[in-house]
Amino acid sequence: MLRGIIRGNIVSTRKQDALVGSKFMEVEIMENGRNTGKFIIAVDSVGAGIGEEVLITTGSSARLALHNTNTPCDAVIVGIVD
Amino acid sequence: MLRGIIRGNIVSTRKQDALVGSKFMEVEIMENGRNTGKFIIAVDSVGAGIGEEVLITTGSSARLALHNTNTPCDAVIVGIVD
Amino acid sequence: MLRGIIRGNIVSTRKQDALVGSKFMEVEIMENGRNTGKFIIAVDSVGAGIGEEVLITTGSSARLALHNTNTPCDAVIVGIVD
Amino acid sequence: MLRGIIRGNIVSTRKQDALVGSKFMEVEIMENGRNTGKFIIAVDSVGAGIGEEVLITTGSSARLALHNTNTPCDAVIVGIVD
Amino acid sequence: MLRGIIRGNIVSTRKQDALVGSKFMEVEIMENGRNTGKFIIAVDSVGAGIGEEVLITTGSSARLALHNTNTPCDAVIVGIVD
Repeated sequence: MLRGIIRGNIVSTRKQDALVGSKFMEVEIMENGRNTGKFIIAVDSVGAGIGEEVLITTGSSARLALHNTNTPCDAVIVGIVD
Repeated sequence: MLRGIIRGNIVSTRKQDALVGSKFMEVEIMENGRNTGKFIIAVDSVGAGIGEEVLITTGSSARLALHNTNTPCDAVIVGIVD
Repeated sequence: MLRGIIRGNIVSTRKQDALVGSKFMEVEIMENGRNTGKFIIAVDSVGAGIGEEVLITTGSSARLALHNTNTPCDAVIVGIVD
Repeated sequence: MLRGIIRGNIVSTRKQDALVGSKFMEVEIMENGRNTGKFIIAVDSVGAGIGEEVLITTGSSARLALHNTNTPCDAVIVGIVD
Repeated sequence: MLRGIIRGNIVSTRKQDALVGSKFMEVEIMENGRNTGKFIIAVDSVGAGIGEEVLITTGSSARLALHNTNTPCDAVIVGIVD
């Protein structure tokens, strides 16, 4: 899993039907408490907002965090770090 | 998921039957609004064209965006960024 | 699989229900006995603690090490190196 | 998906039974028409040869291009670029 | 798939039950016949030993090379290069 800080959100009107309603966040990955300058786009599943530190699950496992597990998505925010 | 800009398309006449009709796009990955100089090949599923900014899903989740979910493809354009 | 040393743990109160009770560890990846300065977050499944050298399985295979194989998790500590 | 040029082939006599008959190719990955100096090993499924530019699918999706979809293989050449 | 040379083995007494009996090898990845200085841990399935050049399958496909395809393992040595 990845740890990171939400830096922004991305708006996409024309997209796959299964992604309608998804909140796309751009997250800067952190390692050992430091920003890395690397980013990933993840769908939020826990109500996280910009500036919050989060945990991200990638790959097929990510879909298990969504209501529709057939969503074509490979990265989901699954937790907010305290 | 990845964010990027479509830089070109790739034509392949001799390919797996399940890929016939697929539009292969070469996409430059962006992070935090900057081009990275890294590229990925993705199949389009939303009618995206060269120069458009898009969202890409990779891995087994990518196939869920295609009509034939048994297509041997690991990256699909699933949205166009506004 | 990856080899690494557990450097810390991460606390997340607001998270996916299926992750409640998971112990999130931040692990520094080692290659050939050397620290790499790269980190990954993994859920512990073998009672490993900070400072221990461990083996990590990633991707969908990671879930097979958890009681609930539908947990949205993509990295699990599956062994402690002697 | 990845784009690359086949640079060589690899011979392995002692291998998993399900891989008998597979043609292992060493492919140099290209990005935006430039060689990257990075290589991957992929099984051919379209009759590609050394020097040809090809498309590669990785991960579990790769297996869908093979006759035996239970082959322990994670990268397959699925198309030849014109 | 990856190509590499087995540089050592790793002993882990406390591990997931499904991994008991697995031989963990540390493999240096090669690209185009050159050592890369990058390493991966893979379970052997073909009787390979230290110093031998091997092929590795990663991800969920790796498990198809093991007797127990539910083993929480994401990298398996599937062939020995001649």
